[in-house]
Order: sequence, then C-alpha cells, then structure tokens
Amino acid sequence: MKPLFKDTLKVVNVGLAGFGDNVSAAGGECIATTWQPPALGDRDAAWALGRSFAHPHIEGANRTAFARFLEAHPVLIDVALARDAIPAMASGRRLIMHAGPPIAWPAMCGPMRGAILGATLLEGWADTMDAAQRLVASGDLALEPNHHHGAVGPMAGIISPSMPLFVVENKRGGNRAYSNFNEGLGKVLRFGANDAAVLERLRFIAREVAAGVSAALARLGGIELKPLMAQALTMGDEVHNRNAAATSLLFKLLAPALFASDVPRERAAATLEFIARNDHFFLNLSMAACKSMLDAAAGVPASSLVTAMSRNGVNFGVRLSGTGDRWFEAPANPVDGLYFPGYSRDDAAADLGDSSITETAGVGGFAMAAAPAIVKFVGGSATDALHHSLRMRSITMGSNPTFTLPALDFAPAAAGIDARKVVDRGILPVINSGIAHREAGVGQIGAGITSAPMACFSAAVVALMRGLEAQ
Amino acid sequence: MKPLFKDTLKVVNVGLAGFGDNVSAAGGECIATTWQPPALGDRDAAWALGRSFAHPHIEGANRTAFARFLEAHPVLIDVALARDAIPAMASGRRLIMHAGPPIAWPAMCGPMRGAILGATLLEGWADTMDAAQRLVASGDLALEPNHHHGAVGPMAGIISPSMPLFVVENKRGGNRAYSNFNEGLGKVLRFGANDAAVLERLRFIAREVAAGVSAALARLGGIELKPLMAQALTMGDEVHNRNAAATSLLFKLLAPALFASDVPRERAAATLEFIARNDHFFLNLSMAACKSMLDAAAGVPASSLVTAMSRNGVNFGVRLSGTGDRWFEAPANPVDGLYFPGYSRDDAAADLGDSSITETAGVGGFAMAAAPAIVKFVGGSATDALHHSLRMRSITMGSNPTFTLPALDFAPAAAGIDARKVVDRGILPVINSGIAHREAGVGQIGAGITSAPMACFSAAVVALMRGLEAQ
Repeated sequence: MKPLFKDTLKVVNVGLAGFGDNVSAAGGECIATTWQPPALGDRDAAWALGRSFAHPHIEGANRTAFARFLEAHPVLIDVALARDAIPAMASGRRLIMHAGPPIAWPAMCGPMRGAILGATLLEGWADTMDAAQRLVASGDLALEPNHHHGAVGPMAGIISPSMPLFVVENKRGGNRAYSNFNEGLGKVLRFGANDAAVLERLRFIAREVAAGVSAALARLGGIELKPLMAQALTMGDEVHNRNAAATSLLFKLLAPALFASDVPRERAAATLEFIARNDHFFLNLSMAACKSMLDAAAGVPASSLVTAMSRNGVNFGVRLSGTGDRWFEAPANPVDGLYFPGYSRDDAAADLGDSSITETAGVGGFAMAAAPAIVKFVGGSATDALHHSLRMRSITMGSNPTFTLPALDFAPAAAGIDARKVVDRGILPVINSGIAHREAGVGQIGAGITSAPMACFSAAVVALMRGLEAQ
Repeated sequence: MKPLFKDTLKVVNVGLAGFGDNVSAAGGECIATTWQPPALGDRDAAWALGRSFAHPHIEGANRTAFARFLEAHPVLIDVALARDAIPAMASGRRLIMHAGPPIAWPAMCGPMRGAILGATLLEGWADTMDAAQRLVASGDLALEPNHHHGAVGPMAGIISPSMPLFVVENKRGGNRAYSNFNEGLGKVLRFGANDAAVLERLRFIAREVAAGVSAALARLGGIELKPLMAQALTMGDEVHNRNAAATSLLFKLLAPALFASDVPRERAAATLEFIARNDHFFLNLSMAACKSMLDAAAGVPASSLVTAMSRNGVNFGVRLSGTGDRWFEAPANPVDGLYFPGYSRDDAAADLGDSSITETAGVGGFAMAAAPAIVKFVGGSATDALHHSLRMRSITMGSNPTFTLPALDFAPAAAGIDARKVVDRGILPVINSGIAHREAGVGQIGAGITSAPMACFSAAVVALMRGLEAQ
C-alpha cells in the first residue's frame, strides 16, 4: 500500500464526477469518463441487452427485415373511401380509427376526443355534440387504432367510414397502407377542432379533392412515392413537419393530369387551389409510404427492428418486427417547441399522432439535416440539424441510399431503428411534431421536437428476448 | 549590427516563401505571411484603388446605389412579343439581340452564331441556313447586346422580334426588364442548336406557353418574384443553375389561374406539361428580376457597385453604376465543370451568357450555400458550397436580408459587388454556368463553376477614378 500513497495519485474516474473532483481538489491527477449502468440500471433490460447482442438469430433476422424495408417500393395507386378500403368498416360497422396504440374513450386526451366527436357528427351518427358524446360514451361505436388496420393519420389521426383515403401499395411486397387527406393548418379535425367549418372542409375534401386526385391518378397510373420523397429531401423538406417541396412536386404531377381528365373545370380548379395552398398536403402520403415500407419489414421472428412508433396523446407505443402486433407503451414525452402567441406548454396535449411513422422509416427528425428550417423554428441552428441526423446513426441498422442529405454531402439518412441500440446507447429517436391544445375543439398551438420514451424500447427488448429464450 | 547577428534570427517574411525558407533552413525562426502587391502589381489599378478607398463621394454613392438595389421590388406583370416590348425593334427593324457585351459577327463564338442563324430562320428573314449566313454576314441585320435594351437571356441569349418576353417591372423604381422563355435542356437555341425541332419548339413556346402564362397572369394580376426566389433559396435552389423549387412554386401559382382562365383545356394542358417538365423554366425570370434590381441601382455617379456581369462567349464584360453604360472587358475564363459523356474542355465554348446577372445580384454562385447539389455536380462538397457564399462577403457592400441561406443559419446572402474590393482583395466573383459546345448546332455539353476575369474589374476601377479625378 505504501508506494500508492507516496506517489502523486493518477486516477481514472468512471461515472459520477463527484468522486473524481475530490481527487483533483486534493492535488491528484484525474481523468473523468462518462459511464452509465447498462440500460440505465433497468435489470431486466440489461439482462435482455446482454443476451440480445450475443443471440445467434437476431443479426440475421435484422438483415432480413431491414432488406425488406429498403426494397419496399410504395406507389400511390388509388383513392378510396375508408368503408371500401378498410375491411373492418364493411357492412356499415360503426368504427372510428385513431392514432397511436389502443386507448379507451375515458382515457383519451382532449384533441382526440374532440376529433372523434367531430367524426361522429360527420358520419351522421348523431345530430348534436351532446348526442355524439352520449353515443361514444355508450360504447356502441368501436374505437380502434389506425395501425391495427394498415392505416396512419397525423395528430388525432381520426378516420371514419365516409373519409377518403390514399391507397399506397408496396409494389415489391404487395402490402397496402392507407392514410387520410390533409386538411391544412389552423382549426382542423386532426388537432381536435370540430365546428361546422371543420366538418364542411372534410366534406369538400371527400367530394372534390378526393375525386380530383382520383381522376388524375387514373391518368397517371400511379405515383411512385420514394423518388418524390428523395427529391423533396434535396429541397429543404424532411417530409414530416416540412412538406413544401414534396407538395409542390406532387402538385406538378397532378395538375397536368387533372387538366387532361374529365373533371369539370371549376371543380378541378377548386381541387388544385386547395392543394396549392396547403404545404402539408404531402404529409399524409409520406406517412402512408413509410407505413408500407415498415409493414413490409414486420413479422420477421427475432428481429429487433422498430416497425412502428406512435402516440395517442397519452401513451407512446412501439412495435418491433420480431414481436408482431404487440405494443410496448410508456407515457408520451412533452414536445419541446415554439407555441403560437397566447399559448404555452401548460396548454399542450402530450405528444400525439401516427406521424412518427416517418421517423421510424428514417425521415422526419432522422433527416433533419435536410431541413434546417425546422430546427430554426424551435430555436436551433443548422449545425443542430446535422447533429440530429448524425446521432441517429448510433441507433440504426444502416442507412437508406434512396434518401440522401445534401448538407452531409448527400450521405444516406440513417434508417432502421434497432431497439437494442436505443437501449444500449441511451440515445432516443428524435421526432418532429405538431402540438395540439389539450382541450377538444381548439386545434394546433405550436410545433417542435420531442423524443420517444426509453421505457418502450426497454420493454420491447425484454419481451423479444423472453420470447426467444422461451423457445 | 553586431547584436542582430549574435541572437537567433526572428524573421517575419512578407510574400514569396523562398526568402523565409532560407532563414528557417539556417536555423532561424520565421513567420510566413502571404502578401501580394496591390492590384496584383497593376500600377494603374493600384493608383485607382488607393484613391478610391479615400475618395469622399464613393461610400455615399455606394450606399445610395445599394439601397436602390435592395429596395427593388420586381413583379412579373406581363408577357409581350419582343417587337412590342423593345422600342429598337419597332417598325419592323431587323434586330437580333444577344448575350454579353457588344461583339461583331465575325468575332462571335460558334454557339452564338448558331443561335443567330436559327433566329434568322425563325423570323423568316431567310429560307436556308446558307441564305441566313449571307444575310447576317452582309450586315443588313443589326446585332446588339440584350443589356443595351433592358433585357437578358441565358447562354447565347438570342432574342428576335417574334419571340415572347417576360416583362418584369420594379414596382419601386418603375424600371422594366425583359427576358425570353426557357426552352428546356438538350438541343436548344441558347446553346447554339438551330435545327427544325429547335425552331418548332420556339414556335410552340410563342403560340402556347406565352399565351398560357399571359392568361394566368391576367387573372393573378402579376407575380412578385423576390418572395418566390427567397423561398426557392430555402428549397435547394440558387436560382441560377438550379431552379427546380422556384419552377415548382411558379407552377403552383400558374396552374390554378390557368384553369380559371378561358384558355382552351388542351392548350392549357400543353402549356402546363411544358413548364412541369422543365426545371429551368424559372431561370429566365430569375434573370429578369435580377436585371430589374440592378438597373434600379445603375447610373449613380461615383458608385463602384457592379451592375452587370455578362459574357458573349469570347469576352467577359462588367459595368459599374458610376460608369453608366460603359463595358469593361477581358477574355472570358473557361468553365471548371463536368462534361456530358463524350465531351471535354477542348469542345467547350468560353463562358457565355447574361445569366451571371444572378451572381451580380447576389444569388447563383453567391448563394451556393443554399444549393449543395450544384457543387456536388462539379465534384465539390457541401462545405465548399458554404465557403463560396462566405468568400463573397469579402467583395460585397453588404447582404440582402430577403435572400437567406438555411445552411448558414439563414444568414442573408452577400450582395452588391464592390469592384474596388474585388481588385483589392484579389477575390473574384464566383459564377455558376452551363457549358456550350464551341461549334454551332451542337448544344449543351456540361455545366460548372467559373469566375469573372480580374482585368474587367481593374479597368473599371481605373475608369471610375479617372472620371472622378478629371472633374
């Protein structure tokens, strides 16, 4: 022991800085290193992690799932009413679909309740808001997640039978994904608003916009969505919170086709005006494309690929390819954002919507380097945008050569979230999001950046490994 | 003397490294500094520079000129035939206008000759290429620069009386600028091609596209160009060599208006298809907008603001606000670019076109940070793009708050080239450019980056100062 105390102490401190600071204060040399216990001290997750990285099947399963994801070729092939596209809505079943993992009516957040009441009126299932409320509370109306029916919707994500849906087919795997039409900004159903103007806009979309897009599609024979998204990434979009370029590119395809269709001139003009004035029009298509790519990668036994991240305004839910339809949930994080004048975080609903399917597919927050305007909006810099995209490389299986980021010298965007890496590295997927008022009927009050809660990923990895170990 | 040679030598070497290297080799300490003689050793220019930075009127004149440039508010107000818009073409005068400073037929480069012959056939002034050649060589046909008539055109920049022009008015200063319609890529008149297909496309543009844009404009009551350009800069364009976003945004304005006009449906559809398939359609509007901003700043006595940079395929010409209509010329530099398969620098015409009016107005190469795709095309990186934009701050009077660069945290783009600073700092304006084949009739063979020759700026500063000293 003696020589140790005679010499000047040279210490490497692991973890908590306090220990090392004392050494330095006493005149010793100390090198500080950061360290955290595996899985942040979650014993079950640490056990699962340790097993998972050594497991003989996971790497191969992930290669299979990731390859199916990369090969997916989503094409917008049609527009159809939800009751015709979604089998569970057939024969007049009263079903309203919503964003996120399953949640019962009493537990739902304000904007989702507001949107469901609006849809109930839209469908003519009730004449007044009171009657709608009684009907929904009675349980005579089914409420199920979009994800359970191959669909996705932004924010509240409400889809009811009379709403038109985009039909996106993965031409490689044959699977289909659906999304509703984007209503624009302001007082809209997806943010929980439900007054007469909101419902009238939804009827206009179903009557005119859907018909116009359908007629244009008939002439175009489908629109390949991946090249459009890729091009938009080189034009300042990340195709989640910013879709200005993608919408313009889509518009440039639709307009000549609509001109050449037999849609009456004034009606076609109204459709085009609606799309031209809504820079978010492409968002729902981006989401359906991402859903179709990820569904193609779902159900590969032993794969730790994240195939869905979604929020119902209360809980955040995650699905893995290897655990099938099961959701792993945790309370949704707040959104770190900028609020419209007069609103603050106290007014905000928790993180909401299926739109995080874009991040699950490696765009949105993962492609933030493509869209510095997004970070600027929440007070960050162009360098922050690069760092968001670079950080996501630590938790992904690879990158997507189709989606490149100009500001990173056209490097492919990180893609294919590996739930193991999220837990192991303590790095959470970054997500861009809108912010809804917590009460029904108000609408959007801001936008910002949030992250998925770690507990979802820990639980998912534990379940994956328990399943594999039980075999 | 003695102590100097006893101590270790500590030397600051100015300029040529060879002197300092010897000191280091002999064991002395040497700090090397870069240095060049003022105006690169041009005695006249050095004299003019020295006087110019101390001159009592130049700073104030530059403030006036730069303010007029910044305040300009270019609006696309109309489409008109060249013979109706350009007074010098009135009463059937046989005038063909071209890019760059003045140049006589025998001295012109191949692509400009090819384009002039094409225009001669288009106007019906000759029936065969031989007859056209004889007519032009006879001198019975006037050839004058676009810039002498308030106009600009890309590459050869040929404008003849029957061609439709965009009419852009600076709503602040009242001055107007004109540009022709963009034909798309490939075999086109502006790159010197002149076969039947080229002329037929020009007729189609005059008959259909011009009529369609005109009808849409009548409904829109004009299109403000600066906000459109500003938005495009946030979407990957620098509005010179890349106009994909700007064209999409323009298209989104034109299409609904064209729908609502009384242009027959099939004709309107043809116009829209043409614009939708030409990502460079907006270039000519960007050029006319820049021309109108810079003309607003022209003719301010004593100002060293550069109001035009343009190339005729042989010489590069520059104009200053304080020296009016006078051109200062030097041989045009080659373009450092990528060539289409089968072509090389040996096949290339020298730098050509009025499109460097965009760089003169602080976009194009000056806004390269907005468009990393451009530098990638010529083998550079996103960082190179940032450096191009940052370097231009050294030779400009300020920056344009309307045109911001996302990758530089939305910093305003450098604008207002001060000819004095170009000569003093030895930094040349960076210019993006297409590359034409040096022979008539071939067309585009590449694209790349070039710079203005220093001699234009030196001569301009000398002339400015001689004029001021003579007063």
